[in-house]
Amino acid sequence: MDDPTSQNMNLGPSVSPEQTVTTMTQIVMPGHCNSLGTAFGGQVMAWIDVCAAVSAQRFSRGSVVTASMDQLDFRVPVRLGDMLVLMSSVNWSGQTSMEVGVRAEVENIQTSVRHHVATAYLTFVHVDDDGRPLPVPELLPRTDTDRRRQEAAIIRRDARLSTRQALAKAGL
Amino acid sequence: MDDPTSQNMNLGPSVSPEQTVTTMTQIVMPGHCNSLGTAFGGQVMAWIDVCAAVSAQRFSRGSVVTASMDQLDFRVPVRLGDMLVLMSSVNWSGQTSMEVGVRAEVENIQTSVRHHVATAYLTFVHVDDDGRPLPVPELLPRTDTDRRRQEAAIIRRDARLSTRQALAKAGL
Amino acid sequence: MDDPTSQNMNLGPSVSPEQTVTTMTQIVMPGHCNSLGTAFGGQVMAWIDVCAAVSAQRFSRGSVVTASMDQLDFRVPVRLGDMLVLMSSVNWSGQTSMEVGVRAEVENIQTSVRHHVATAYLTFVHVDDDGRPLPVPELLPRTDTDRRRQEAAIIRRDARLSTRQALAKAGL
Amino acid sequence: MDDPTSQNMNLGPSVSPEQTVTTMTQIVMPGHCNSLGTAFGGQVMAWIDVCAAVSAQRFSRGSVVTASMDQLDFRVPVRLGDMLVLMSSVNWSGQTSMEVGVRAEVENIQTSVRHHVATAYLTFVHVDDDGRPLPVPELLPRTDTDRRRQEAAIIRRDARLSTRQALAKAGL
Amino acid sequence: MDDPTSQNMNLGPSVSPEQTVTTMTQIVMPGHCNSLGTAFGGQVMAWIDVCAAVSAQRFSRGSVVTASMDQLDFRVPVRLGDMLVLMSSVNWSGQTSMEVGVRAEVENIQTSVRHHVATAYLTFVHVDDDGRPLPVPELLPRTDTDRRRQEAAIIRRDARLSTRQALAKAGL
Amino acid sequence: MDDPTSQNMNLGPSVSPEQTVTTMTQIVMPGHCNSLGTAFGGQVMAWIDVCAAVSAQRFSRGSVVTASMDQLDFRVPVRLGDMLVLMSSVNWSGQTSMEVGVRAEVENIQTSVRHHVATAYLTFVHVDDDGRPLPVPELLPRTDTDRRRQEAAIIRRDARLSTRQALAKAGL
Repeated sequence: MDDPTSQNMNLGPSVSPEQTVTTMTQIVMPGHCNSLGTAFGGQVMAWIDVCAAVSAQRFSRGSVVTASMDQLDFRVPVRLGDMLVLMSSVNWSGQTSMEVGVRAEVENIQTSVRHHVATAYLTFVHVDDDGRPLPVPELLPRTDTDRRRQEAAIIRRDARLSTRQALAKAGL
Repeated sequence: MDDPTSQNMNLGPSVSPEQTVTTMTQIVMPGHCNSLGTAFGGQVMAWIDVCAAVSAQRFSRGSVVTASMDQLDFRVPVRLGDMLVLMSSVNWSGQTSMEVGVRAEVENIQTSVRHHVATAYLTFVHVDDDGRPLPVPELLPRTDTDRRRQEAAIIRRDARLSTRQALAKAGL
Repeated sequence: MDDPTSQNMNLGPSVSPEQTVTTMTQIVMPGHCNSLGTAFGGQVMAWIDVCAAVSAQRFSRGSVVTASMDQLDFRVPVRLGDMLVLMSSVNWSGQTSMEVGVRAEVENIQTSVRHHVATAYLTFVHVDDDGRPLPVPELLPRTDTDRRRQEAAIIRRDARLSTRQALAKAGL
Repeated sequence: MDDPTSQNMNLGPSVSPEQTVTTMTQIVMPGHCNSLGTAFGGQVMAWIDVCAAVSAQRFSRGSVVTASMDQLDFRVPVRLGDMLVLMSSVNWSGQTSMEVGVRAEVENIQTSVRHHVATAYLTFVHVDDDGRPLPVPELLPRTDTDRRRQEAAIIRRDARLSTRQALAKAGL
Repeated sequence: MDDPTSQNMNLGPSVSPEQTVTTMTQIVMPGHCNSLGTAFGGQVMAWIDVCAAVSAQRFSRGSVVTASMDQLDFRVPVRLGDMLVLMSSVNWSGQTSMEVGVRAEVENIQTSVRHHVATAYLTFVHVDDDGRPLPVPELLPRTDTDRRRQEAAIIRRDARLSTRQALAKAGL
Repeated sequence: MDDPTSQNMNLGPSVSPEQTVTTMTQIVMPGHCNSLGTAFGGQVMAWIDVCAAVSAQRFSRGSVVTASMDQLDFRVPVRLGDMLVLMSSVNWSGQTSMEVGVRAEVENIQTSVRHHVATAYLTFVHVDDDGRPLPVPELLPRTDTDRRRQEAAIIRRDARLSTRQALAKAGL
C-alpha cells in the first residue's frame, strides 16, 4: 500500500494547466447507443463531465461538483464501434471555482483519422464533504495556448453575463 | 397489438408546445451518485437529454439527434434519495431542427418541497435512419408563455452568434 | 439552496390520489433490450417499480420498500426506439402500507399512437431508516375514478386471499 | 468453435422440469440498491425475469418473451453485501406458453443461513425472430414435486380467471 | 425476517470444495456486447469475478477482495442471445487467501449444446471491513477431483513463481 | 462530417508501440464498488480490457476480440472516490494476434500520489465482421523500452507453454 509510483507533484499555491491534463478513451458499445446506432447525446455529456471532473480534482486536490456546462455543440455523430477520445485541462480559476475545457474526438477504427465531436467548457466548485465551497489554487498559465485559453474563458464569462442581461431586459 | 388507447393526436403541419410536454421522474440511487452522495453532473445531463429528446420526437414524429445543449447551471445539488422531476417542451422550430427547454426540479421526500436544479435548452435535428436531416413541423405557440419562450429561444440564438463572433474577433 | 419553487402542498392527515400522480418517460435503447430487439421484461418491471415508488413516497412522505407486485400482464411488446410512458397513483392505504397502480403505455414515434403495455398493482410499506414500518396517511378519494380504484384494490386483496386459501386447501 | 463439452440433451417432444432447472447467483452491490442500502424491488424483479427466461428457453429451445408475472411478495429485504440465489424451473406448459416458478433466497455472508425472499411465477411465450408465437414441447412431470407444481400452476390460472371475472362483474 | 429456509451448514474449521460450489447464469444482451455482437471480454471477466467471489465468501464466511486472476483464455466467442453458465468452487486455501476455479460455458439456445468458453483461476483474500486480512478455514478435499484440483493449484503457484524469476533474471 | 482534425498517421506494414499508446481515466463511483467501498475486481478487469482493446485496434486498424489475459495481480485496492488511470500499448505481434500491456494506477485525490494497482497482459485477435482472424501489421520497436517489453512478452509466451506442459504431464 506504500508504493508510490510517481512523485507527489508538489502542487503549491499555483498550478499550471499542463498539470491538470486528462485523457479518457472509450469504445462506443451498444449499451451507449440509441436505436439509430449512435451514442446518445446524454452518454457523451456524461463522459465529458467525468473527464472534466478529473482535471478539476487534479487542480483543486479535492472533491468537486459540476456547477455549469457552457454551450455544447455536437459537430459529428459518435457511432457504434467508434473510439472516443476526450482531453481536458483547467483554463481559468476563481476563488472556489474553475473552468475546464474538454475536447472530444472520435477516432475511426480503420483509418485512425480523428474528427472533432465537441468542445465543452464546464465550471466546477471545489467542495468539502458537506458540499461547502473551498478555495482553489491560482492557475499559472505557462504557454501561449494557456494564456489564450484563459482569455477565452473570461470572454465566455462576459458573454454569459450579457446573455442573462439581454433576457432579463426582455422580461424573459 | 392493435389496441390504440389514445387517439392519434393528428399533428398536422403545425404543432403546439403543449403537444410536446414530457415529464420524467427518477429516484436518485447510489448507482447515479459520486463519492459525495450527490448525483454526478453527467448523470443529470443524461436524464435531461433523454427527457428533451422525447419532446423533440413528439414534435418531429421521428428520430432525433442532439445537436447542442446551451449553457446549463446547476443551482442546487441532487442528493441520494431525492426524487428528480424533469419537464420539457419544444420552444422553437427551424427547418430541420428545434429547441427544447427542460426544467429539472428536485423534490424533497419528507417535505414535498421542490427546488429548481437546472434549466437546459437543447437543440435536436430530426433525422432519417441514415442520420440525414428531415423537415420538422411548424411550431404553433398558443399561450403567452409559449410566445415568451419562443422569443427567448431567438434571443439565445442571437447571443450564441455574438459569443462566437466575439471569440473569432479575439482570434480565439 | 433555499429557493423553494413550489409550495409545500401541506399534505395533512389525508392525501388524495391526485397528489400522488407520477409520470415517467423513457426511450427504449439497446441497453434495455434482449437479443430480439424488445425491452426485456425485467427492465420494464424495474421502471414500473421506480415509478410506483415515487407515488408511494409522495403519499407517505418518507422512504418505502416494495412489499409485493400483483399479477402483471404484458399486452404488447416494447420495442427498441419506442417511447415508454408510465403513470402511477396511490389507490388504497392501510396502516403502514399502500397500493399503487401503474399504467405503462408505449408511444409510437411516427404516429403518436399509444398502446397499453401493462397495468401493475404494487404494495409498498412506509419504513424508517432501519426498515421498520411507519404509519401512512389516510387516502382521501375525491373523484369517482378514485373511488372505483379503491374498490378494485379491495377486490384484489380479497382475491389474493382466496387464491392463497385455495392453494393451502389443496396442500400446495 | 466445435468443442461441445456437454452432450445435446436430446430434448424430444416432452421435457421434464428437471431439464429446465436454472440457478443464478448475485452479490448485491451499491449499484443495485436504493438509498436505504437494500436492493430496490425492480432490480430483484429484473433478476427474477432473467433467471426464469433461461428456464423457459431451455424448455422451448428458442427465444421467449415475458407474458406475465403472477403475484410477487417480498418476505425479507435484500441488503447490500448479501448473496442472492435464484432457482427456477418450468411448472406447466400450454400450446405456445409455459409457466416458470422462481424461488429467490438471500444467503447471509457470515452465517450461510438462507432466507426465503420471494417466490414468483412467470409466463413466457416461445416466439420466432418476429415475435410470433411458436409451439412448445409437452412438459413431462417426473416426480411428486413436479406434479404438485403443475397442479398449483393450474389453480393459479383458474384464480386469475376468477379475479378478472370478479373485477369485470363489479364494472372495474 | 426470522425464517431460515436452509440450515446453517455449520462450516467448522475445515470446509470441502463442494460446500463452495456456485452457479451463475446470464443471458447475453446488447448491453453486454461490443459492436461485433459478441460479449466484450471485460464483461465476461466481470461475471467470472463475481461468481468466484461468491465461492470465496462461502468458504471464508466473510468479505473478500480479488487478489489475482491467473492466465485466462477465451476459447469460443460468447454471442448476443447466448446463455452463459458459470460454475466455481474453491481449489486451495492458504493462511488468509484461497484459489477459486471458474468454468464458463456458453449454451446454445436451439441445441442445448454447451461449449467451453474459459477456465479461470482467481485468488481472493478474506478481509475485515477495513480491508485487513483475516484467516480462512482449511480446505478439506473429499473427492479425487478435489485433490487433483488442489494439486493443480499448487503447480500453478510454482509456475507463477518460475515466471517471475525468469523475468527478474532477464532484468524484465 | 469531413473535418479530420488529425492526420491519418499512415500506419504502413509496421507500427511502433508508441502509435498504440492509450490512456483511460475513470473516477471510482458507488456503482463501480462492492459493499466494502472498493471497486470490485471484475470492474477493474473490464476497464483494463477496454483500454487494451483500444491499443489493439489502433495497431490492427480493425475490430479485435480478447483472446486471453495473463496473470493479473492487484497490488493495492481501488477505493471509492479514487481516480484510476490506465495506460496501454502493444508489446508484441504475431500473425493475427498481438499482446497488449496495461498498467493501472490509482491517483489519490488529496496528494496526487499514484500507486501501482496492476499490470496486465492481454492477447487480442484482429477479426473481420464474422469473427474470422485477419493479419496484423509487424510491430516495430523503436526504443529500448519497446525492445525490453517485446522480449518479456516472448518469455511470458514460453512460460505459459511450460505451465501447460507441467499441468499436462501431471495429468491435470
